[in-house]
Amino acid sequence: MANKRRVCFPITSRAYYGRSRPLIQKLHSHPDIDLQLMLGGAILLDKYSSHIAEDIERGGFTISTSYFNVIEGGNHVAMAKTACLTALEFTNGFHSIDPDIVVICGDRFEQLAIAMSAAYLNKTIAHIEGGDVTGSIDESVRHAITKLAHLHFVTNDDAWRRVVTMGEDPRYVFNTGSLDVEVAAAVTTDLTNERINSYGVGHAVDITRPFLTVIQHPVTTETDNRQHLETTMRAIGELDMPAIWFWPNPDAGTGEMAESLRHYRERHSAHSGMTGQMRFITNVPVDEFIALLRRTACVVGNSSAGIKECSYLGTPVVDIGGRQFGRLSGDHVVRTAYDEDEIARAVRAQLRHGRYPPSHIYYKPGASQTIVDRLATIELYTQKRFCDPAAAGVRTS
Amino acid sequence: MANKRRVCFPITSRAYYGRSRPLIQKLHSHPDIDLQLMLGGAILLDKYSSHIAEDIERGGFTISTSYFNVIEGGNHVAMAKTACLTALEFTNGFHSIDPDIVVICGDRFEQLAIAMSAAYLNKTIAHIEGGDVTGSIDESVRHAITKLAHLHFVTNDDAWRRVVTMGEDPRYVFNTGSLDVEVAAAVTTDLTNERINSYGVGHAVDITRPFLTVIQHPVTTETDNRQHLETTMRAIGELDMPAIWFWPNPDAGTGEMAESLRHYRERHSAHSGMTGQMRFITNVPVDEFIALLRRTACVVGNSSAGIKECSYLGTPVVDIGGRQFGRLSGDHVVRTAYDEDEIARAVRAQLRHGRYPPSHIYYKPGASQTIVDRLATIELYTQKRFCDPAAAGVRTS
Amino acid sequence: MANKRRVCFPITSRAYYGRSRPLIQKLHSHPDIDLQLMLGGAILLDKYSSHIAEDIERGGFTISTSYFNVIEGGNHVAMAKTACLTALEFTNGFHSIDPDIVVICGDRFEQLAIAMSAAYLNKTIAHIEGGDVTGSIDESVRHAITKLAHLHFVTNDDAWRRVVTMGEDPRYVFNTGSLDVEVAAAVTTDLTNERINSYGVGHAVDITRPFLTVIQHPVTTETDNRQHLETTMRAIGELDMPAIWFWPNPDAGTGEMAESLRHYRERHSAHSGMTGQMRFITNVPVDEFIALLRRTACVVGNSSAGIKECSYLGTPVVDIGGRQFGRLSGDHVVRTAYDEDEIARAVRAQLRHGRYPPSHIYYKPGASQTIVDRLATIELYTQKRFCDPAAAGVRTS
Amino acid sequence: MANKRRVCFPITSRAYYGRSRPLIQKLHSHPDIDLQLMLGGAILLDKYSSHIAEDIERGGFTISTSYFNVIEGGNHVAMAKTACLTALEFTNGFHSIDPDIVVICGDRFEQLAIAMSAAYLNKTIAHIEGGDVTGSIDESVRHAITKLAHLHFVTNDDAWRRVVTMGEDPRYVFNTGSLDVEVAAAVTTDLTNERINSYGVGHAVDITRPFLTVIQHPVTTETDNRQHLETTMRAIGELDMPAIWFWPNPDAGTGEMAESLRHYRERHSAHSGMTGQMRFITNVPVDEFIALLRRTACVVGNSSAGIKECSYLGTPVVDIGGRQFGRLSGDHVVRTAYDEDEIARAVRAQLRHGRYPPSHIYYKPGASQTIVDRLATIELYTQKRFCDPAAAGVRTS
Repeated sequence: MANKRRVCFPITSRAYYGRSRPLIQKLHSHPDIDLQLMLGGAILLDKYSSHIAEDIERGGFTISTSYFNVIEGGNHVAMAKTACLTALEFTNGFHSIDPDIVVICGDRFEQLAIAMSAAYLNKTIAHIEGGDVTGSIDESVRHAITKLAHLHFVTNDDAWRRVVTMGEDPRYVFNTGSLDVEVAAAVTTDLTNERINSYGVGHAVDITRPFLTVIQHPVTTETDNRQHLETTMRAIGELDMPAIWFWPNPDAGTGEMAESLRHYRERHSAHSGMTGQMRFITNVPVDEFIALLRRTACVVGNSSAGIKECSYLGTPVVDIGGRQFGRLSGDHVVRTAYDEDEIARAVRAQLRHGRYPPSHIYYKPGASQTIVDRLATIELYTQKRFCDPAAAGVRTS
Repeated sequence: MANKRRVCFPITSRAYYGRSRPLIQKLHSHPDIDLQLMLGGAILLDKYSSHIAEDIERGGFTISTSYFNVIEGGNHVAMAKTACLTALEFTNGFHSIDPDIVVICGDRFEQLAIAMSAAYLNKTIAHIEGGDVTGSIDESVRHAITKLAHLHFVTNDDAWRRVVTMGEDPRYVFNTGSLDVEVAAAVTTDLTNERINSYGVGHAVDITRPFLTVIQHPVTTETDNRQHLETTMRAIGELDMPAIWFWPNPDAGTGEMAESLRHYRERHSAHSGMTGQMRFITNVPVDEFIALLRRTACVVGNSSAGIKECSYLGTPVVDIGGRQFGRLSGDHVVRTAYDEDEIARAVRAQLRHGRYPPSHIYYKPGASQTIVDRLATIELYTQKRFCDPAAAGVRTS
Repeated sequence: MANKRRVCFPITSRAYYGRSRPLIQKLHSHPDIDLQLMLGGAILLDKYSSHIAEDIERGGFTISTSYFNVIEGGNHVAMAKTACLTALEFTNGFHSIDPDIVVICGDRFEQLAIAMSAAYLNKTIAHIEGGDVTGSIDESVRHAITKLAHLHFVTNDDAWRRVVTMGEDPRYVFNTGSLDVEVAAAVTTDLTNERINSYGVGHAVDITRPFLTVIQHPVTTETDNRQHLETTMRAIGELDMPAIWFWPNPDAGTGEMAESLRHYRERHSAHSGMTGQMRFITNVPVDEFIALLRRTACVVGNSSAGIKECSYLGTPVVDIGGRQFGRLSGDHVVRTAYDEDEIARAVRAQLRHGRYPPSHIYYKPGASQTIVDRLATIELYTQKRFCDPAAAGVRTS
Repeated sequence: MANKRRVCFPITSRAYYGRSRPLIQKLHSHPDIDLQLMLGGAILLDKYSSHIAEDIERGGFTISTSYFNVIEGGNHVAMAKTACLTALEFTNGFHSIDPDIVVICGDRFEQLAIAMSAAYLNKTIAHIEGGDVTGSIDESVRHAITKLAHLHFVTNDDAWRRVVTMGEDPRYVFNTGSLDVEVAAAVTTDLTNERINSYGVGHAVDITRPFLTVIQHPVTTETDNRQHLETTMRAIGELDMPAIWFWPNPDAGTGEMAESLRHYRERHSAHSGMTGQMRFITNVPVDEFIALLRRTACVVGNSSAGIKECSYLGTPVVDIGGRQFGRLSGDHVVRTAYDEDEIARAVRAQLRHGRYPPSHIYYKPGASQTIVDRLATIELYTQKRFCDPAAAGVRTS
């Protein structure tokens, strides 16, 4: 077919790539779609995602263009300027490859900037994962993207209602379930001790016995990220059990959190006291990540994987602080404040409880296929119009 | 008082400056506020606004910083990149002057970019003129800003309802009436033939006799701006009466529209046929602009001044095409498609009708004072939370 | 041949394109060269060069990428930032197309920025037109490019000596003659009244009778460009003969000069007094420009075309002020200060003298072929080493 | 005095700050000078220079502005774009503080970009450390800056001759001796084991007994930086003696070198074999750095400190590879290729030889005072003119 629909997928973080891999694969194979991958931001930096470019090439996908545009600093200024530079460069990329649709994923700060640029170039914008509520700047970013987007693929019923309430046309809002959970549901591989301990630094962790997984990202709208991290460290230390600790995302606040972790590790490599059971990992492939979540006794921190993937996997979760505040979550999640004792107590309770039955709040079969089908066939438009939820006859609550 | 609240006002167009002058004046004089003016974008370019910097200095306001960041091209790429560069530079400015509140005005493309930067720096964002519905990219921009903003000053009841429907907390949404209309209501000066004909180029227009005012901006989401402008030209030519024609805004689509106007003018200066009664003006001071609207027999085009200021002034308006589509408007507005005959017919009907009684749909006394009072005293916050309109007990329709 | 040498040609102004067309053509046809055209800066803006993109496509050349990056303002800040943005974007372009050689032309401000970027990417840089001396910022730019470049194609013997004196390796410095003059020598087409008067605005000029051509660009290192332009205007007015006036380059100082010309023209279209014999032109195709230079009685201003092309064409030239200060020039040039009487006197003297015999100071046959041959075959290197002119056994003066 | 001369000092690396501290101090105290410090680039990133901002404030200096503009990647693209973004932002800074003189230090990639911006804004540029010859991209950068600069403060006679040979006016070229060496000569503090081992990570080094100091930066024009580093590692390992190892500069090539060092260190912390005597340090204050050089048995690598500071201190140096190729050096330097055996042999020979007598090739008393006196009083100019070295009566060789 001569006139394929050009679908541009800007990827800026390993997390988005991981959860979107089946979607990218299906877009790539679709006879009526010409997939355009654009890379920028954190995904291009070795230390966060060394193997992704190779994986992309192995998948037979062509990268249309890639831009180095992460400004160092790990603070808010660097974050804001990274977003601006990313959008400026993606504008050139869009101008050059002229997509029909730009797919915006999630709620990372640079994705709003990219959506803005796409909107100004009159592209049809498809947004995946709108309508959720959380804390952090992600909350603002996500809804602002919704108001720029033309097609909405949300992951749960609550999100659908919110997107429509915000004035989006219900004909273009689809609850497809979560791509993360689709990926999680599809992973069958298991993880060996040898494999997991080939990543990162620190002590070997025996994953055939109970261990914790800690993932605590900075909350960009808070100023005491370092202290919050140290609270978690003390709580984990107190629990005195093996733990796999993931380095935080490169968002504002990363600098101080990473320094805190580094200092911690330095101390720990000299004296191997209470903290001598931790391994620090930057990044593992998505299937091994899921296998890890499956095996872990309890996930601690503030990652959305705790809320979403673990709802399906049934892994107990202790969710700390405001980052996921308000997000729809299953019974497997216990929420705590930034309080050492409260965290330790919650983890102990979860360990006693053990695994939960799988929940389908974020799951629908064939999420990626549903999205691809819509992207391939839906009529495209660019001029948005506020759609009064009441007038549209939609019951929004 | 030692610790004044720092209120940053980024100004990027002469229109925003014109309508915000009383607000800026009151912020400047307020004992508890430290006003920080930041200039960027179109307002720094001589051809659009030569006298504003001087006016600002005469007003005793200090300009904290100013950035040249309009990228030439008059197309979508240039518009998008201008927004990105503006935001990148304003990030530096915000970092340097560290405001407590950033005031975002209206729905211009670069204001969303500035709002994004301010949000990423954890500033409290106050948005003026949210909640309206219109066409063009402005529609998307306006609502995306709403979802980044913490304080909302809207100009009419419909807008208030929409902002709250979108999940904003009603405690932070205020209908203050329109600043444009406040300015329009305050202007008492009149305009002379000598004065108006000192601006621009073309034929002298006798404003003591019936004349038209034409203001037609590009619609960034449409691709045939040039043709639409030429349609209006032919309609105006057919009407065979004097007209003051304002050059379009520097948005995407300007390039072709300006070229069209220039060609038109070149032809007309050689042969002075049917079009020999027009004057082309870039810009007049805001009080003279209001005086002009007051005297004009009919405003033709797609300017928001036709909808808002003219509602109060009672000047008949023919609003063409989709740019103001959906915006709350009074009886004084007749809407038409991009159709020569329809436009000419509508103008003739408005001329027959004559002036309308003043409407208060966009007017409340003391709009700027209300805003200043809130900015000076309201409790500031940065972490946004989606506020379910139903749960909040708000009837949104 | 599988492994063609990739030669990247960044074009940023119509002047460079005009003089480089034969070179581009030969690079395009060469069996061992893969030509990569990159466009940016002023050349993409309609008002300066509307027909170039079409011409490029007609020539069968592929444009690898094009970037809108001219920042409006017409002042030094805008000029500096345009250079920086250009270099930032061309870095992405170079990264994407990975050239072996980057060809830098002349001494425009953005070309130094592009050369810097290419140097940082370890590309071999070929510089055309180094070693001349002139005034304006061009003087600094040109020599700084020389110190970044690896291959030097200069246009005259003096320039060759200077480049070698600056420490460049004589094995990589070639006097090929001037591309401008090669183009001028090749043009055979003539110009009609109808044709030249189809460009620009103002009065028709009869080019079958004596007329002047005025080209006066801003001098970026001077602050009184507007006054200097007005001095020339008065001198031309005093001479009371038809004149073709070219709008200035988009460099710092353009804003005020263009405004000055515009005001002048407005006055003149109203009252057609002493200045009623001028035509204002932005741009003509290069062959018609040469034909115009051939026909003109005297070229007035500060364009390098007066020094270079006119040396071969024998057209009398009055060169004003410091822009071309120090540049090697033939007998056909009379230099003057920014002084109305002196300019008028000099023009009258040149009119009395009439045309000069052709000079070959800037001319060698086959300039473009010589350059292409070297680019195709010379051994490439990237690590520069200062080459002591004395040690190299080169007599530099 | 009302009209002080505004001298802007852009600082972008800790090395420049270290060597320029006395100069900055004297500029700050001078009654006729208004010192403007601008910070950008690597110096703002904690991991390279955590204490500098505090030191600056303790010194009572005001930072006019500071810009985060290092683009992550550690490769050539990131380096080039960092330079462009730095220059774009410093343009805004210069526009805002309007200096009379901009002081450019050395030959780092971003300093050329800053010099370019300053030149385009018609500032007088003073360059410190021009005229040397070395390898790497620094060689091109340094001479290109020379051709943009108006005042030249060089560190040795050879450099003076080269700058004049390149066409600079001898009246504006001054051999003041090296600021680095002035700082080195002034340092009297000594270093304790406790102090040096409070920095960095790895094994404690006893500096009261013979040890090596290794400083090996990437050479941006070479592609095998990692391999070169590993060669040095093996050579140092073979020598089997304590070593202080400094992390490389954040230039292109850093990424791979840092990774190499990190892997090395990881291996070494697990098994403490042959490499168990190393300490890895990012950064120490300049006076402690000098004290370290004074105590070290031999400096190994490619730092200019080996050539310059050590010439005065008499510390033996083994200089590896092309980075300092061609730089004037004293008897204390032995040069080697990237060859493990050759390096080890050279270090052993230097250890046998022991310390050298101080050399004054880079030393003149009062270097910083000479520079300040010139900056305060010399007549400023902006239009450069190529100064023929022969015509100027200067014997350049």
